[in-house]
Amino acid sequence: MRTPSRFWPRFLAVSDPRPVAPGGLLDRRAVLKGLAAMSAVSAVPARAEDDARLAAAMPWQKTAGKPMSGYGTPSSHEGHVLRTTYTRYGAIALGNGGSFTPLHQLEGTITPSGLHFERHHHGVPDIDPARHRLVLHGLVDRPLEFRVEDLLRYPMESRVLFIECSGNSFRNTLGKPAQVSCGEIHGLVSNSEWTGIPLSVLLDEAGVQAAARWVIAEGADAATMARSIPLEKALDDTLVALYQNGERLRPEQGYPLRLVLPGFEGNMCVKWLHRLKLADGPQHSRDETSHYTDLLPDGRALQFTFEMGVKSVITQPSAGRSLPGPGYYDIAGFAWSGAGRVRTVEVSADAGRTWVPAALTGDAPSHTLVRFRIPWHWDGQPATLMSRATDERGQGQPTRPEWLARYGANQRYHCNAIQAWAVDDRGEIANVFV
Amino acid sequence: MRTPSRFWPRFLAVSDPRPVAPGGLLDRRAVLKGLAAMSAVSAVPARAEDDARLAAAMPWQKTAGKPMSGYGTPSSHEGHVLRTTYTRYGAIALGNGGSFTPLHQLEGTITPSGLHFERHHHGVPDIDPARHRLVLHGLVDRPLEFRVEDLLRYPMESRVLFIECSGNSFRNTLGKPAQVSCGEIHGLVSNSEWTGIPLSVLLDEAGVQAAARWVIAEGADAATMARSIPLEKALDDTLVALYQNGERLRPEQGYPLRLVLPGFEGNMCVKWLHRLKLADGPQHSRDETSHYTDLLPDGRALQFTFEMGVKSVITQPSAGRSLPGPGYYDIAGFAWSGAGRVRTVEVSADAGRTWVPAALTGDAPSHTLVRFRIPWHWDGQPATLMSRATDERGQGQPTRPEWLARYGANQRYHCNAIQAWAVDDRGEIANVFV
Repeated sequence: MRTPSRFWPRFLAVSDPRPVAPGGLLDRRAVLKGLAAMSAVSAVPARAEDDARLAAAMPWQKTAGKPMSGYGTPSSHEGHVLRTTYTRYGAIALGNGGSFTPLHQLEGTITPSGLHFERHHHGVPDIDPARHRLVLHGLVDRPLEFRVEDLLRYPMESRVLFIECSGNSFRNTLGKPAQVSCGEIHGLVSNSEWTGIPLSVLLDEAGVQAAARWVIAEGADAATMARSIPLEKALDDTLVALYQNGERLRPEQGYPLRLVLPGFEGNMCVKWLHRLKLADGPQHSRDETSHYTDLLPDGRALQFTFEMGVKSVITQPSAGRSLPGPGYYDIAGFAWSGAGRVRTVEVSADAGRTWVPAALTGDAPSHTLVRFRIPWHWDGQPATLMSRATDERGQGQPTRPEWLARYGANQRYHCNAIQAWAVDDRGEIANVFV
Repeated sequence: MRTPSRFWPRFLAVSDPRPVAPGGLLDRRAVLKGLAAMSAVSAVPARAEDDARLAAAMPWQKTAGKPMSGYGTPSSHEGHVLRTTYTRYGAIALGNGGSFTPLHQLEGTITPSGLHFERHHHGVPDIDPARHRLVLHGLVDRPLEFRVEDLLRYPMESRVLFIECSGNSFRNTLGKPAQVSCGEIHGLVSNSEWTGIPLSVLLDEAGVQAAARWVIAEGADAATMARSIPLEKALDDTLVALYQNGERLRPEQGYPLRLVLPGFEGNMCVKWLHRLKLADGPQHSRDETSHYTDLLPDGRALQFTFEMGVKSVITQPSAGRSLPGPGYYDIAGFAWSGAGRVRTVEVSADAGRTWVPAALTGDAPSHTLVRFRIPWHWDGQPATLMSRATDERGQGQPTRPEWLARYGANQRYHCNAIQAWAVDDRGEIANVFV
């Protein structure tokens, strides 16, 4: 009826879990035959005489269900899947803080819009789209002022892109490994289908003058968040996004307008976009001087380190979870790179002594979160799980000591050091520094 | 700094809107230079002396915004973007009905989970995942009973796939063109990233016996919705989905488990999946005999017409909208095919006399919604907009008379006839039968 599937060729039923590396990593195509009968997976084999019981109705089949609805929400049984919020500076800057995407509770590659991470500098403004304006001025031939309804009539493009706060994983730059969830360590990264107008189209409308080298982007939040963007990036693949995952942007993601710069620091994807000013130099705004610079060991700081590094993290199993017993586990995680495509992800179950390539699912385009997976047979002994990604430019992830040596003691940005999760003999999992 | 973009090569700034076809269709790469200055697009050109005003803060920058949240929701200004619900049979079958995705209010290709269409036969059951079971029995070597937590440990795959109710677009099979929104006509199709276990992996666990030819899938709703699935499809690319767009399924999409059969009738993507029984023949269940069969002119009916046809629809501009005036418009819509990939979409602005290829955005994989776009210069005269897709198998869309001639008078399923939207000289848009 159909040609053989192109999508599930990697599964290879095996009845003998022969590891391909110390620590119990299995062939990346392996699915254990007899998984259901293994002690740690508790599917119940049934007998033929159970058939009437198996075919019986479940309790909730006996009454009519709920009616249709205008806008759906998650099941009440999944009410624990939430962003974890944090605040900074308290009353000095109300609404300064963020929230972490619960990466360890998600599957696939799209982040639900309701769970996309947040990082706000003075709260989420409530913007009336009828009154909002996008201003394009400075070194242009024709300064322009756009209403949102004007922008909605422009041609648009869609791309699935990750956004990562450059402060993501800052907890792993501190002295002791925080014993919090994977999402609370690495959840300042999310992945959405963004739809909007190529900024190049709007710049072409205004006419960029020859002297222009930078675009100063400013948000309409109470912090007036502003960042300087090199003109090359603005003309290349920068998007003025109006839609996220099919619908208009959520307020906390910049409704009605946000910039999206593939692969660059999340902070540059200016939310509640109000103003784009063409200039011959950068603005040296607060958020590219006192913040979002990279301290070096000699006390100097790097400025304008726009591109996010290559990175990966095992989301399951991960910190705070416990394995119910020895047996088969599907190790899975996310990988991404500001440089473009992820080329390979390798996994180690012996604290980095040996590495095995994981399977990458989907033919992921540039600048998106990619899923990796590898089957694992846990023998009940202590194990340390790690992952490391390499991108299309050949860049890899540093170990934590290598990353620390590169920067000053107070550097919190651009941490892409290899994450290690230690499994003890009870199956408890902890964040560890190795 | 970066290689030239691979993503926005198609935009071609042109200052002279020379149509490539009667009715004002433009080159698919064209963006009108000076779009902002055109009467119908109202961006306001500003003067240099306006600069201080342009740089001034918006009102909502003057107070702190709202704090972070655990789970986000759309802007209150977008509260009109909702599914449109309908019910059938009233008290005879409570919760029998559905809801339409507002296709005309969406952009990109992903449908937000809260707006995915619904079609229920006896309401949405409230399933406790701790008590729910998936049963795999019949012609298998080892009948199995899975808890949801067992299934969550299996290897998973993710794919972006459309699901279309085979009754989608039924309003265009009726005698008069309904004057409702595009979503209320064609919105029983939606597109999500589904993540789950290949059904082949679970079937392999149970051991399919040589006599088995069909899988009878049954849901745990009050209607006990059941459909017969050919074993070839079950072993090919059928998914037992647990996640939609990154998070666990929504209740109205089958929480905690639903089947997803790429390209097949939505009704076969059984929600609230409870039972899979291997059999040597189909079940001839209620929903594959009294419903979901295709009436022919001679009174006989086709059964088991699983695959959805190739189809497209212009979502903007579309019925119920009005164009504010002559000028540039970006025509955009969705195309899809149960056979796999969409190869081309053509658009006509003169009621089907001439056709021009539209641009397809993204490198869309099989069985997903694809976006098409083409720029259009409306001259203020009446025009009739149509689109027609061709898929990788070479199938095209029939005209409405062609489609009607193929079936009996009461056929409501599998309508993939070409949609026509008539624009009158005031810019008002209506659904028309041509």
